[in-house]
Amino acid sequence: MTELRLRILFDGVILGPGKAELLAHIRDTGSIAAAGRRMGMSYKRAWMLVEEMNAGFALPVVASARGGAGGGGAHLTEAGQEVLRRYQLVLDTALAASAEHVAALEAMLRPSDVAGRK
Amino acid sequence: MTELRLRILFDGVILGPGKAELLAHIRDTGSIAAAGRRMGMSYKRAWMLVEEMNAGFALPVVASARGGAGGGGAHLTEAGQEVLRRYQLVLDTALAASAEHVAALEAMLRPSDVAGRK
Repeated sequence: MTELRLRILFDGVILGPGKAELLAHIRDTGSIAAAGRRMGMSYKRAWMLVEEMNAGFALPVVASARGGAGGGGAHLTEAGQEVLRRYQLVLDTALAASAEHVAALEAMLRPSDVAGRK
Repeated sequence: MTELRLRILFDGVILGPGKAELLAHIRDTGSIAAAGRRMGMSYKRAWMLVEEMNAGFALPVVASARGGAGGGGAHLTEAGQEVLRRYQLVLDTALAASAEHVAALEAMLRPSDVAGRK
């Protein structure tokens, strides 16, 4: 299956598949550490990505409670939910609009019957 | 200025900003080595990316004449021109279709008056 990866380079922050996935996991797990673990990412790196987003947007996208090294829980703010929703809409509309051209490129690929290749 | 970076993960090959730029430079310079240099890329790496594309598509996207280490010249085939054209169309249609949502995200950015920040 063809997949589209999309990275938006704003003035102050870059929003791409990694940060979007991290936000979704924070929403689902209520924890920056747990969200990072789901992506095989260190707590430090997950925190850094959250800090980048919180610094880049006018309102914080993730709010975290005080706690130990593992943190006292975190959740997406309304702004964070909106950022994630809009990012997904960018991806969805981009995919739909470009489908004809993606299909034209797919038709140019070398056919392959290698087992397991999907 | 906000910029959109787009990477298409096909079954056999990934097409993104780097390979698209390399194709454009090969078209403009007539040389894989010169195209790579324009991107600060080693000849070896430029060749590898060309080989990946030539292996991934049914028809070669770059044809190169025999030559020394520096190569005997290279040019985009018709297939290569079409791949580059379609990739640009994917990007253009994606940008146009998602503009509303990109603008909504831009409106959420932290305002900044840091000098030189563009």
